[in-house]
Amino acid sequence: MKTRAKKVMMKMKIKNDLARECLGEIIGTFVLLLFGCSGAAQVKTGRDMKGQFLSANLSFAVGVMSAMYLSMGVSGAHLNPAVSLSFCVLGNLPWRKLLPYSLSQVLGAYLASAVVFFMYYDAIMEYSGGVLTVTGPNETASIFATYPSEGMSLQTNFFDQVVGTATLLLCILPLNDKRNRPAPEALLPPIVAAVVLGIAMSMSSNCGGAINPARDLGPRLFTFTAGWGTEVFTSFSYFFWVPLVAPLVGAVLGSIFYLVFIQWHLPELEIDAKSQTEVMDSTVVKSLEKKDDFKMKVAAL
Amino acid sequence: MKTRAKKVMMKMKIKNDLARECLGEIIGTFVLLLFGCSGAAQVKTGRDMKGQFLSANLSFAVGVMSAMYLSMGVSGAHLNPAVSLSFCVLGNLPWRKLLPYSLSQVLGAYLASAVVFFMYYDAIMEYSGGVLTVTGPNETASIFATYPSEGMSLQTNFFDQVVGTATLLLCILPLNDKRNRPAPEALLPPIVAAVVLGIAMSMSSNCGGAINPARDLGPRLFTFTAGWGTEVFTSFSYFFWVPLVAPLVGAVLGSIFYLVFIQWHLPELEIDAKSQTEVMDSTVVKSLEKKDDFKMKVAAL
Amino acid sequence: MKTRAKKVMMKMKIKNDLARECLGEIIGTFVLLLFGCSGAAQVKTGRDMKGQFLSANLSFAVGVMSAMYLSMGVSGAHLNPAVSLSFCVLGNLPWRKLLPYSLSQVLGAYLASAVVFFMYYDAIMEYSGGVLTVTGPNETASIFATYPSEGMSLQTNFFDQVVGTATLLLCILPLNDKRNRPAPEALLPPIVAAVVLGIAMSMSSNCGGAINPARDLGPRLFTFTAGWGTEVFTSFSYFFWVPLVAPLVGAVLGSIFYLVFIQWHLPELEIDAKSQTEVMDSTVVKSLEKKDDFKMKVAAL
Amino acid sequence: MKTRAKKVMMKMKIKNDLARECLGEIIGTFVLLLFGCSGAAQVKTGRDMKGQFLSANLSFAVGVMSAMYLSMGVSGAHLNPAVSLSFCVLGNLPWRKLLPYSLSQVLGAYLASAVVFFMYYDAIMEYSGGVLTVTGPNETASIFATYPSEGMSLQTNFFDQVVGTATLLLCILPLNDKRNRPAPEALLPPIVAAVVLGIAMSMSSNCGGAINPARDLGPRLFTFTAGWGTEVFTSFSYFFWVPLVAPLVGAVLGSIFYLVFIQWHLPELEIDAKSQTEVMDSTVVKSLEKKDDFKMKVAAL
Repeated sequence: MKTRAKKVMMKMKIKNDLARECLGEIIGTFVLLLFGCSGAAQVKTGRDMKGQFLSANLSFAVGVMSAMYLSMGVSGAHLNPAVSLSFCVLGNLPWRKLLPYSLSQVLGAYLASAVVFFMYYDAIMEYSGGVLTVTGPNETASIFATYPSEGMSLQTNFFDQVVGTATLLLCILPLNDKRNRPAPEALLPPIVAAVVLGIAMSMSSNCGGAINPARDLGPRLFTFTAGWGTEVFTSFSYFFWVPLVAPLVGAVLGSIFYLVFIQWHLPELEIDAKSQTEVMDSTVVKSLEKKDDFKMKVAAL
Repeated sequence: MKTRAKKVMMKMKIKNDLARECLGEIIGTFVLLLFGCSGAAQVKTGRDMKGQFLSANLSFAVGVMSAMYLSMGVSGAHLNPAVSLSFCVLGNLPWRKLLPYSLSQVLGAYLASAVVFFMYYDAIMEYSGGVLTVTGPNETASIFATYPSEGMSLQTNFFDQVVGTATLLLCILPLNDKRNRPAPEALLPPIVAAVVLGIAMSMSSNCGGAINPARDLGPRLFTFTAGWGTEVFTSFSYFFWVPLVAPLVGAVLGSIFYLVFIQWHLPELEIDAKSQTEVMDSTVVKSLEKKDDFKMKVAAL
Repeated sequence: MKTRAKKVMMKMKIKNDLARECLGEIIGTFVLLLFGCSGAAQVKTGRDMKGQFLSANLSFAVGVMSAMYLSMGVSGAHLNPAVSLSFCVLGNLPWRKLLPYSLSQVLGAYLASAVVFFMYYDAIMEYSGGVLTVTGPNETASIFATYPSEGMSLQTNFFDQVVGTATLLLCILPLNDKRNRPAPEALLPPIVAAVVLGIAMSMSSNCGGAINPARDLGPRLFTFTAGWGTEVFTSFSYFFWVPLVAPLVGAVLGSIFYLVFIQWHLPELEIDAKSQTEVMDSTVVKSLEKKDDFKMKVAAL
Repeated sequence: MKTRAKKVMMKMKIKNDLARECLGEIIGTFVLLLFGCSGAAQVKTGRDMKGQFLSANLSFAVGVMSAMYLSMGVSGAHLNPAVSLSFCVLGNLPWRKLLPYSLSQVLGAYLASAVVFFMYYDAIMEYSGGVLTVTGPNETASIFATYPSEGMSLQTNFFDQVVGTATLLLCILPLNDKRNRPAPEALLPPIVAAVVLGIAMSMSSNCGGAINPARDLGPRLFTFTAGWGTEVFTSFSYFFWVPLVAPLVGAVLGSIFYLVFIQWHLPELEIDAKSQTEVMDSTVVKSLEKKDDFKMKVAAL
């Protein structure tokens, strides 16, 4: 790259940490919802001929993976206010960053919905007969935000979202916990994606499995502005607040659950040669080679 | 974290090894069944519109992966009395821990069933017409425990569970065997999950593919207490004992099979520099770099 | 190998870099399309009894993975003129190689179509009733090239392909970016395959999700020569140029998007011991072992 | 383990290399077919209610993965006479081992078929109405061996098997080629499994996608002895020889194709510090850390 271009680039560079992180969350959540909503759009408007329910679940999972690789190095790839809140509670994110992170996530989700809407405009019009509705056999609102199935009580839906998000946190916290048996850091994205896929396949039946206030509010706001009207908030007895509040409760519960029932009881990591040697003993083959490697080095000396 | 909070935490810490391990098994099996049963509930009560048979299989697999990352560092993540029994036979688990491990696994499975029941209460009531039955077109018991298909003989079911669990052990023992070609330790959970997925896709047709006494007994006990009644034990000619006994037999057979036909004949791992060098020779590229690395070190000296 | 054979081999060896790279792109794209088109052929001619839409998506993903392992060491495995163009723009590929790369990719795709045609000749004849058409219920042209669904406007299809290809580049560029959190290099192929799978499941509904001019033009040229006639170009109001042009636009847009919104703001990689130590601090466990390893070495000295 | 038990074990140990390798191939192919045939049995006898075509494909893939982890350390896990033949041609297996390997593979496949037959005996009897046939709507022979679809010509089937097996070899040879960009050795099993999955999803429509003479002959011999009769050989104009011969031709062609078009042109691996440094430069981050590690060592000296 030429020096001039580099200079321009250096000027453009956002040096403010929080601004950079917000940008990361916007783009990460954008990609997550781009895959997620377009996957849902393909399945619905394709009338199950171009993928079925599982394809939509898998699309969301690919969205999680891609969004994490994209913004992990920038903002940690929370992509979810419930995750950000948990990280505040756990002391991994300063509280003052919670609101900016959350708003960024909602914004990213909103923008992705807009892109999906334009991409699937013809198909949505064909499927819905040109009338954008939230209920009925030709409804298309569920491509974007989540809505409950018929006959679900409010408390069931709330409990569903609490359990779903608690499961999410309970399953992702050990993946990066040095005192537990963590997953390879460079493979966290596909593994977290598998967890999200699992939740989508097993806990999305009652009310869509949002487990993420931004994933739900962003698209809902978009559909509100794009022609589905106030029904997106009023339908199903004002259901919309459930995927906003319940995931926050669930995420914190899940995190505390992990701390109290697992993390507190794990052996301490003591950074001294002796304990380290023991850790190495417990890792298969590789550690063996290393120890040997070490011996050889000593021998060589 | 503040010193005070840390002190409280230190007091809460369970120092008794076995108690800690039991807690790990409870929570691990809880997560396994939480994914597994809710996946089955979503497929059944959703009448195949929110995932099909494969989704339920995949949910169980994600449950295995998540449960393993969660409790591998605490208890080894057996999650299955048949696995614990095999590890006792193989000398990897003291016999006195077998009963506590097994009871913990049953308890975790029971608790998960309760959570799934409340999460899917509305959907189960809608699907079953409010009558909780074990047989018939609206049965919902199979969301939790396993039941045979119509027309299967007892010996077929017993043989099925023996083969299924033997396959499980035969396929997971090499994954961690230093004398064989083990999988990367940090990726054992998804690989074991794939094995379980394979068994669910190929050996769950006859009688549900429990291959795990705790996975079956915990939910069965729950359904017994939650309104399905004694039928959960008496139906299909007292089938319930098959997934309790056959997996234990199968797991031990599978382990012995692995020992006798594979492990005994593998080359010994001798921990001396020479043989180690040979091992390194056989690993591609990485070992090459290491050897070279070693040369460079020598050169540097 | 005998010395004589080795000599012959040495003579056969292509020493010209570009020729070797073109060969790599031909064979890589050949394998990509071999999986992709035969997967589509199996689903279509099997009338959904031998796999459904998802299987065809998965076949393409396996094609991506296999093609990448095959030609990454030779040519970088672009497999797509839109990717090659982006790499030119990013400065990773000299502009003079763009045309040879692109033509090689089209040629590989053409050859694969021919193999798939002969492999599925009987089935295509049976399915189509012997009449090779581009539209109608027995059309078989979509096994090879992409065609839009009924009722899609040209601008929707163009936008669809721009977004799809932009998503591809936006999601694969971070995977190999040292300043971000890259994926393990030896596992890039399956991870890129997952991204392509995601796009196929979520953005292939409108007009087939080519996101690759070679993947589309090669098979289209083959069907033109093999009996489908000029309709492959004229149908759907000369749609054929959309998957040629839109992916090029989308890929460059996606790359710029990644640069401007993510890469410019990532921390610089400074190759000095101090910053390196910090990088090592941030990688879990492994780095820990390494540091310790290092300490031990120092201690040994 | 007690000394006595150890002595018994030492006596049992098979010290003859070839005998040990044959045992590895028997058990590996046994596990491959155990998953594969039971997966096919579950899909067929379950009338698509307990998994569909994709599940059967996935079962085979899990079988490949599990079989490879099981016997890679013993025999290299060829599991396929076509692979063994290719390795003879490539000089990786002595020709005198070809027949013992192949017979072991057929034997393993035969034994697995027997286990699957007994496991699915009730279901097969129910599905077939008690009459074991090779053709017709209630045929059950295709659970075990492969048979062509109606209307396929012999040359199409032969070509199909040649292409399928050539694809297999072309895609797996680079995975372990140090001069190319190999996959991580400890993850070869799932990656090879993905390749086999891809072939099953895209090239199994015409005649079942055996791509493995042992996978086909073992089960065919079993069905011959178990009651399906001579029809297993005579049906479809003596089709049975196609999956025996064509995969051998295809595998060798695929291997030569890989050698001529890819491997010959790859840069030589020269084992000296300088080139090694270059190799390390090309691997992302990790190599970076290593180099730095190296620098630190030098500095420490």
